[in-house]
Order: sequence, then structure tokens, then C-alpha cells
Amino acid sequence: MPDGTHPALADAARAAAAAFGAARARYDRAALAEKVQMGADGTPTMRLDILVDTAVAEVVNRHRVNLLSEEIGVIDNGSAVTLVVDPVDGTANAAAGVPLSAFAGVVAVDGHPTEALTCWYDTGRCWHAVAGEPVPYRTSGRRDLDGAAVSLLRPHGDDDAAWWRVAKRAARVRILSTSCLEAALVAEGSTDAFADAGSDTHRIMDLAAALVMVPAAGGAVLDVQGRPLEIDHDLSRRWSGVVGATVELAEELVSTLREAPRREELP
Amino acid sequence: MPDGTHPALADAARAAAAAFGAARARYDRAALAEKVQMGADGTPTMRLDILVDTAVAEVVNRHRVNLLSEEIGVIDNGSAVTLVVDPVDGTANAAAGVPLSAFAGVVAVDGHPTEALTCWYDTGRCWHAVAGEPVPYRTSGRRDLDGAAVSLLRPHGDDDAAWWRVAKRAARVRILSTSCLEAALVAEGSTDAFADAGSDTHRIMDLAAALVMVPAAGGAVLDVQGRPLEIDHDLSRRWSGVVGATVELAEELVSTLREAPRREELP
Repeated sequence: MPDGTHPALADAARAAAAAFGAARARYDRAALAEKVQMGADGTPTMRLDILVDTAVAEVVNRHRVNLLSEEIGVIDNGSAVTLVVDPVDGTANAAAGVPLSAFAGVVAVDGHPTEALTCWYDTGRCWHAVAGEPVPYRTSGRRDLDGAAVSLLRPHGDDDAAWWRVAKRAARVRILSTSCLEAALVAEGSTDAFADAGSDTHRIMDLAAALVMVPAAGGAVLDVQGRPLEIDHDLSRRWSGVVGATVELAEELVSTLREAPRREELP
Repeated sequence: MPDGTHPALADAARAAAAAFGAARARYDRAALAEKVQMGADGTPTMRLDILVDTAVAEVVNRHRVNLLSEEIGVIDNGSAVTLVVDPVDGTANAAAGVPLSAFAGVVAVDGHPTEALTCWYDTGRCWHAVAGEPVPYRTSGRRDLDGAAVSLLRPHGDDDAAWWRVAKRAARVRILSTSCLEAALVAEGSTDAFADAGSDTHRIMDLAAALVMVPAAGGAVLDVQGRPLEIDHDLSRRWSGVVGATVELAEELVSTLREAPRREELP
């Protein structure tokens, strides 16, 4: 755990990792992935999600701070501090056994994100950032999409043409299916960009940690449709997040993804 | 290191891991990825590849066995035993800092693969298999492409239409850019299939470990064009490997990838 992490955020990450490990030891893949209830964000919640989110909620109540999470939703303990948490980023990976999933949490004070922590479950590696303070990692500094290494959400249908356009311009394409880890890889310079090509799949929990971590490392986080990225109790809101090593690269990705589809450039 | 691993293979994996760690400690990303010579397989060799391959070659000479590797090519020590090695599977990931890369080695006796070992560098996790003996993991058993979780190489141009067809039929698509790890994930049932959609990118080192590991776990390894997968000193040979949780799924992937391209199904 990085030095100086907010005590509630650090405890939440530790509790999440313990619950994650216990769940994977106790349940098989099918049971972990079973959709056991409807989450606060309006999508079905897998058993693995609810087990980890419940552990995080206990920490939040002990620390008398508030919680905003995908599954449980809002817990209001009357604090100025809210933890905005994706308890299991990459749940489908985690439930299946693909070793790419993470805890991602943000400390928000009166609605403004001030600190972020992303911890990769399978290795214990963490990325931490405090708004306004230097971070020990840096983006790649790449400005151009041509030649870039880009991570994408899988194509979702409506965004197929936009997805394909970016995939063919990038030098490398990855689909790791874990948004928070993919944003951390941009922050540390291992890849140049990450994007939802326009499917509006991202919830604020998928992007909140990046909002602190990526600008601190020299990059930028935008939405394809230009909507402001805000911490909001309305969990039905969605974005198509674009995380770039520089403002220039993030803006080029947005403009490329917004161009009208042209069939002739497709396979 | 799994019990019972062939001593030369075990030593090769340990030497590779040590060289990999030393290279990443000593060189920055640009230096690791620098193309420093032409490999025996006819593609440029990155510095990281040659450092690890050299460490493997020393082990091979000490054990008086032969070597077949992507970079150094053939070392003939007059043994009936040849190690077929991909010293750094996922070199681009490893050089950039994306934590998805592996050592993959096979013991071949008179040209027939008899034992395989794949070790994920970033965690030390290994998958081992001996031909004809039970393995402690199992594929998912999935038979149908519709609804499957499929890993793909990125689309390469000639295979764009085939790539897209599979991506749209699968329930989940991943591009992890590390063929040997992706095959190991099929073997252990974390994902259902992995394929080169037809770009003929795979060399025998990319598939040799899967040839032992995947059938032992209930799956199958095929080539899109039906070519036999053979250990051969001719390193110019290429395949489009298809790794499936079952024979049925591998065959359905092959037939889907071989259908003539139809533009109207593309985005």
C-alpha cells in the first residue's frame, strides 16, 4: 500500500483484496459470475461483485465516510468525504480466471476527486495519486494516434465503425477488459491511450481514478461526446471515456471516434 | 517450478526469468524494444529478446541438448532432445511494461513434443504438461462459438473480415498480445479459445507449448489453413493457430475464419 494513502481508502482496498481472495477460494467460476441481483447502476451484479462491495461498505461505515459504488450505490454517513469505488474492475475477467482485474477507489471531498488508488488484484501492484502532488510515474508523452498503442473496449455495435477506424490507425491494439487497469497503464506510460469507442459503457467508477491519476502523470481524460466527467449520485449516467498520454492524443482520439462512419474504410 | 519438469527445461525457464528481470532493471523501454539484429525467424529481434535467448542458449549448451528458438535459431549439440523455446512471448508487452509476457518451452524428442512449460514472467505462475499424463487443469469444455470468450491476435489486414466475423459472434473478445499465455488461459478454462484470424503470424514457438498442454486438458490446436503443426528447423514457416476448449470449437473457428469475406456483415 503506497505511503500516505487516505486511511479509509487504504482499508477499503485491503478489505476488497481479502474479500476477493476469499470469494475465489470458496466459489467456482460459474458461482462467481452468477448474476445474483440488480446493481445500483442498473446492470446485473455478479456474486463476486457483491461479496467485495459488501466488504468495502463495512469499511466505509466503520470510517463514517460515504460510499458511491456500482453495486450497493449510495451510502450516506453525513461525511464531506465520499469513497467512489469500483470494487472489482474487470469482473468478467476475474470470475473466469483471466488475471486482469483491480480495485479502484477515489476519495472525493464535496464531490471533487482528490486522491486515487488502483490495485491490481492478481499481483498486489498499486498506483496512487493525490491531486496537486507529484506522482512517481509518467505517461509516454505521445501526441499522435498514428503509431500509438491503444487499448479499447470491445466493439459494442453502435460504435463498430468508430472502433474499427481507431484499431486500423493504431500501431498496437489491445482489449484487456479492465478499464481501471488500462487507465493505469496509460498513466505509467506502458500504453499510449485507452478508449470506449462510443458505446457509453463507462460509469463514473470506471473513470474516477483516472481523473486524478492520469492528469498528474501528464495525460488527459475526456468523453467522446464532450460531456463533463462528474461524480454524481445518479448511477444511470454513462460516458465513453478516452484516456490519453497527452491532451493532444486524447483530443485526436475523440475527433477520430466522432467522425461519421465511412464504409469504404472498413474491412 | 512444477515438480517433475525436465531439468534442462526447468533451468532454461529459470535462466530466462533471471535474464528478463535483469534486462528490465538495466534498460529503459526504448532500449528494451530497440531492434538490434535480424532474428533466425526472419523478423527483427528486440534487445530484450536477444538477452533472454542468450541466457537460454547457455543452459542448452550446459545440458548438451539442442535448441530451436526464434532469435538464435538452431543450436545442434547432437542430442535427441531439443528445447523449442519462445524466450519472451509478448515481447512488445514486456518492453512497454504491460505485464503480460511469458517464457514458453517444449521438450521435443526426435522432433515430437513431449513436455511443455509456460511461465508468466510478471507473477511466476507456470503451466506444465507432459504428453500422455494427466494435468491439474481443464479447458472450459465449450463447443460453440456463439457465446464463447475468444482471444484474438489483432487484425492484420488480409484477415480483417475473418477477424471481424469472429469478434461479432463471440460473447467476449480479448486482445492480450501474448499467444502462449492466451493458450494457457484456454488450457485452464479461463477463456474458451484463442486464434490468429488468418494473418499467418504464428511460428512454431508460439504454438509448441499449446500442442502438449491444450489436448492434455481436453482441447485442440489447429491451423486455419489445415497445415500440420510441426517442429521444423525451417523458421520461415508460419501458421494461423487456433486453440479451442474442444475439438468442436476449434473446428467451428477454423470454418468461420475460412468463409469467404462478405463485406455486408462488416461495420
